[in-house]
Amino acid sequence: MKLKVKDMDISTGDIQIIILNEKDAHDLDLHPMDRLVLTLRGKQTIAILDIAESKKAVPPGRAGLFEETLHALSAKDGDTIKIGIADKPESVAYIRKKMDGGHLSPKELATITQDITQNKLTDVELTSFVVASYTRGMNMHEIAALTKAMAKSGDRLTFGKYPLVDVHSIGGVAGNRTTMLIVPLLVAAGCTVPKTSSRAITSPAGTADTMEILCPVSLPTQKLKKIINDVGGFIIWGGSVNLAPADDKIIRIEHPLSIDAEGQMLASIMAKKASVGATHLLMEIPLGPGTKVKDKRQAKHLAKHFAELGNLLGIKVKTITTDGSQPIGSGIGPILEARDVIWALKSDPRAPSDLIDKSLQMTGTLLEFCGKAVRGKGRALAKQLLTSGAAYGAMVRIVEAQGGKMPKTDDLLPAKMAYTLRAHKTGKIKDIPNALITKVARLAGAPIDPDAGIFLHTHCSCPIKKGEPIITIYARSSHKLDNAVKQLKRMGGISVR
Amino acid sequence: MKLKVKDMDISTGDIQIIILNEKDAHDLDLHPMDRLVLTLRGKQTIAILDIAESKKAVPPGRAGLFEETLHALSAKDGDTIKIGIADKPESVAYIRKKMDGGHLSPKELATITQDITQNKLTDVELTSFVVASYTRGMNMHEIAALTKAMAKSGDRLTFGKYPLVDVHSIGGVAGNRTTMLIVPLLVAAGCTVPKTSSRAITSPAGTADTMEILCPVSLPTQKLKKIINDVGGFIIWGGSVNLAPADDKIIRIEHPLSIDAEGQMLASIMAKKASVGATHLLMEIPLGPGTKVKDKRQAKHLAKHFAELGNLLGIKVKTITTDGSQPIGSGIGPILEARDVIWALKSDPRAPSDLIDKSLQMTGTLLEFCGKAVRGKGRALAKQLLTSGAAYGAMVRIVEAQGGKMPKTDDLLPAKMAYTLRAHKTGKIKDIPNALITKVARLAGAPIDPDAGIFLHTHCSCPIKKGEPIITIYARSSHKLDNAVKQLKRMGGISVR
Repeated sequence: MKLKVKDMDISTGDIQIIILNEKDAHDLDLHPMDRLVLTLRGKQTIAILDIAESKKAVPPGRAGLFEETLHALSAKDGDTIKIGIADKPESVAYIRKKMDGGHLSPKELATITQDITQNKLTDVELTSFVVASYTRGMNMHEIAALTKAMAKSGDRLTFGKYPLVDVHSIGGVAGNRTTMLIVPLLVAAGCTVPKTSSRAITSPAGTADTMEILCPVSLPTQKLKKIINDVGGFIIWGGSVNLAPADDKIIRIEHPLSIDAEGQMLASIMAKKASVGATHLLMEIPLGPGTKVKDKRQAKHLAKHFAELGNLLGIKVKTITTDGSQPIGSGIGPILEARDVIWALKSDPRAPSDLIDKSLQMTGTLLEFCGKAVRGKGRALAKQLLTSGAAYGAMVRIVEAQGGKMPKTDDLLPAKMAYTLRAHKTGKIKDIPNALITKVARLAGAPIDPDAGIFLHTHCSCPIKKGEPIITIYARSSHKLDNAVKQLKRMGGISVR
Repeated sequence: MKLKVKDMDISTGDIQIIILNEKDAHDLDLHPMDRLVLTLRGKQTIAILDIAESKKAVPPGRAGLFEETLHALSAKDGDTIKIGIADKPESVAYIRKKMDGGHLSPKELATITQDITQNKLTDVELTSFVVASYTRGMNMHEIAALTKAMAKSGDRLTFGKYPLVDVHSIGGVAGNRTTMLIVPLLVAAGCTVPKTSSRAITSPAGTADTMEILCPVSLPTQKLKKIINDVGGFIIWGGSVNLAPADDKIIRIEHPLSIDAEGQMLASIMAKKASVGATHLLMEIPLGPGTKVKDKRQAKHLAKHFAELGNLLGIKVKTITTDGSQPIGSGIGPILEARDVIWALKSDPRAPSDLIDKSLQMTGTLLEFCGKAVRGKGRALAKQLLTSGAAYGAMVRIVEAQGGKMPKTDDLLPAKMAYTLRAHKTGKIKDIPNALITKVARLAGAPIDPDAGIFLHTHCSCPIKKGEPIITIYARSSHKLDNAVKQLKRMGGISVR
C-alpha cells in the first residue's frame, strides 16, 4: 500500500514510529505495535505502528512519521512511501523463551542486545526482557554472555597494557569524589588507569561533572590512546565513548519500576570494564542508610558474584565495603567537590580528611591487588605518593593531556547566593542523611549550575556549639536558594542532640 | 513551574502524555515516564512525561500535550498550565510485589485493575504486570479476585433470572456460528441467555458481525433488560456494553508478545460471564491444528481450572471439546454465515449439516446441564425445538426486539466478484486449513465488506470429481479478489489426493 507522508514533528529519541489512521489499519488488518517495512526511493526501514483514532492526527491515506523514521528514510512531508508487514525480530522469540523459564545461549543474548542497541524492540518487548530476566533470573553463564554482548554492542578501547586498573563504586553517597584522587595516585604508582565515569543522574555531581571543572571530559578515541601512552591514565565521561549502549536502554526501563535486577546490574557495570580491557577492578560497596546495597550479607553475596563474573570475563575483581552513612568530603556540587580534590592532592590543610583517608585506603588495596605494592604496604605507598606531590603531578599531566589547565583553588568559588544553617544548641550533630544533602544540592542548582551546592562545615557525631555553622547552601538565584532551603526544612533539617 | 501548552495534534487512544523539552526536564530533574500533575483553571490531571530532544517538537517553556491530556484539562494551544510531580500510583508497588514472587490480595488486584481501566499505568508498568503474572503465575484465589475486579471495572448487567445460561468458545475455527443457533434454541426451551459476542479481530467474522446482518448489536443497557424480560435472550456486541474494560487493555499488551497467560485468559473470559450474572456456562474447546488449545491434555487441564474458578465465582461451568480441524458451515464472512444460520433455523435443505449437528450437540449438553432436560434427552429436545420451528420463532423475536427484521435468505447475496477453485483431479479433499480460509476471506474483504468471504462447496475427506468446485471466493472489487486468490495460491491452495 502507498501512503503520503505526514511529518508529525515529534521525536521519541530512539524507536522509529509510524502512525496510520484507524481506517487504513483496519483495511490492512494491522494492529498497534505491529512492525512495518517502509520504502522510499530505494531506502528501507522498519517502524512500529501506532494507530490514530482521529482524522485530525493522521487522516486516511497518510502515514504519520516521527523524526527518527523520517530521518531513516530521508523522507519529507508529502513524499509517497510504500508500506508492508515486517517480521518480528528473532529476539522476540528469545524473550519469550526467557519468559517461559528457559536459559538463553550466548548467541541469543547477543541478538537481543543487538536489537536493543539498534532500537528494534518496542517498550513492551524490552520491558518483557527486563522483567522476565528479573523474575526468572539469569545464571552466571547468561550474565557473562550478556556482559560480553553489551561490551561488543558499543565502542571498545584497546590499550594493550598490564596491569590495567579500574575502580567502581556502587554509589549512593554524596560527594564521593575518591576516584579523582585514586586515579592520579595509581598513575603516579605506574598503573594504567583508563577511567570512564558517569555524569550525575540523581546526584548533585558525578565524577565526570566534577572532572569537567578542570578539563574537557569528552575526547575522541584516538586521543585517549595517546593519553594512555603518554600519561598513563585519564578520567572521562563514559557517555562520550559509547561503551555498552544497550545498557542505557535497559536502565531506562528499570528506572520507573525501581528494579535493580542483580544480573543486569552485574552485566551493566562489568560490560563497561570489559570495554576498556580492565585486568584488575576494585569494587567499592558503601553501606549505610540510603545506599544501594542494604547490608553486609547482601554485599558479600554481590562480591562473590562480581568475582565469579570477573573470572568468566578475565577480570580480577576485589570488593571492599566502606562506610556510606554520610557524605564524604566537605563540598557537594561540581566546583566545591573539585576544590576538595585539589586541596587533597596539594596536602592543603583545608582538605577534608575523610576523603583523603578513604582514597588512600582504596588506592592501597588496589596497589597490593595488582602487584604494585607488597602486602600490607599499599596504603603507606599511596600516602607517600600523595604527600610527595607525585599524585598532584600526575593529575596535572592528566588534566593537561585532556586539554585543560589545573585551576587555582582560590578561583574555584561557589555561587553568590548563600544560606547557612547553624546549630540551634550546643551538642553533637545527629545525622547528615545522603538523601537530604542530595535533594537540597540539586534544588540549589547542582550539577547544571556547577558552582551551586553545599559546603559541609562538620560531619555527623561531631561536637558543635550553638550558633556554629553546620552547612552552607550556595545557589545562583534567590529563587533556587529558596527552593533548596524550603526542601531542607521539609526534610527536617540537620539536628543537634 | 508554568508552561505554555502546545497542541501536539496526536492521540494515543488511552494514556495521557505530556512532552517537555530536554532542557526544562533537566532543570526540573524529571525523567522519561515520570508522572506529572497538570493544573489549568481548577482542573487537574496526571500525565506521563516524554522528553523531546529537539526544539522543533517542543521548545523550552512549552508543554506538548496529546489529545487525551488536552481533553482532560479542557486546554487549548497557548494556555498556561502549572506542572508538578505526582506520586506513582499504589499499583506500581503491587506490580513490584508480583515481580518479587508475592501473592496479591483482592484489594491489591482491585487497585491494579482500576488503574489499568483508568489508563493510569504506562506501557512499561502494564507490561511488567502482564509478564510478572505470566512468569510468577497466579493462584486460583488471585485469578478469582482479578476476575471479580475486572467484572467490577465495567458495566454489570443484572437480570435476576435463573438459570441464566451462557456459552463460550475458545476460538480458532472459521465460520463457527453455532452461537446464533444455540441462543434461539435455548430461548425456545425457556432459558435466559444474555449473550455478548465479539467482533472479528483476526477472523473473517465474529458472532457480533454476523448478527449485525440481521439487526443492531449495540443497544443501551435499559433496552437489554427489557429484551430479557420480553423475549428471554439477545445476541449483542460485547464492546458496546463496556464489560470488563481492563481486559482489553491487557490483551493489547499480550498480543504483540503472543502471550496467552492462562490466569489472564481465565480471568478475561470469566469476568465477562460474571458481568452478566451467568449461572451456567458451557465452554467449548475446539481441538485441531491452528486452534488455541493444542491437545486433550491441555483441554482437560483448562476444563479443571475453569470449573475451579467458576466455583469461586458462583458459576457452574461445563467444558466440552469439539473437532476444530476444519471450518464449520458453508459460508465464511458475515452475510454468508448469516445465511447458513437462517437456513439451519428454517430447516432448509441448503443448511450445512455440520453446523446443525454441532449446535444441537452443544445445546443438548447445556439443556441437561441447567436442568431443562433430563440426562440423555437434551439433544432430542434441541432437535425438536429446531425442526418444529420454535427456535426460528425465538430468533425472529430476538432480532425484532433488537430492532431488526429477519431477512429472506434470497436477499443475503454475496459480493459480485467471484473466483471458484475447482478440483484438478478426482479424489478426496485433503485438508481445508482454518488459517488459509481465514486469511483468504479477510483479504477478500471480510468482515469490513459483509458480503465478502468464501463459500465452501465441500469439506475435507469428502470425495470430489475433477472440475467440481471446492470453494468460491467473493469480493467487492477485482483488486481484493486478486489479493485473496494470490494468497490462496501462496498458501498452497486446497489439494485433492
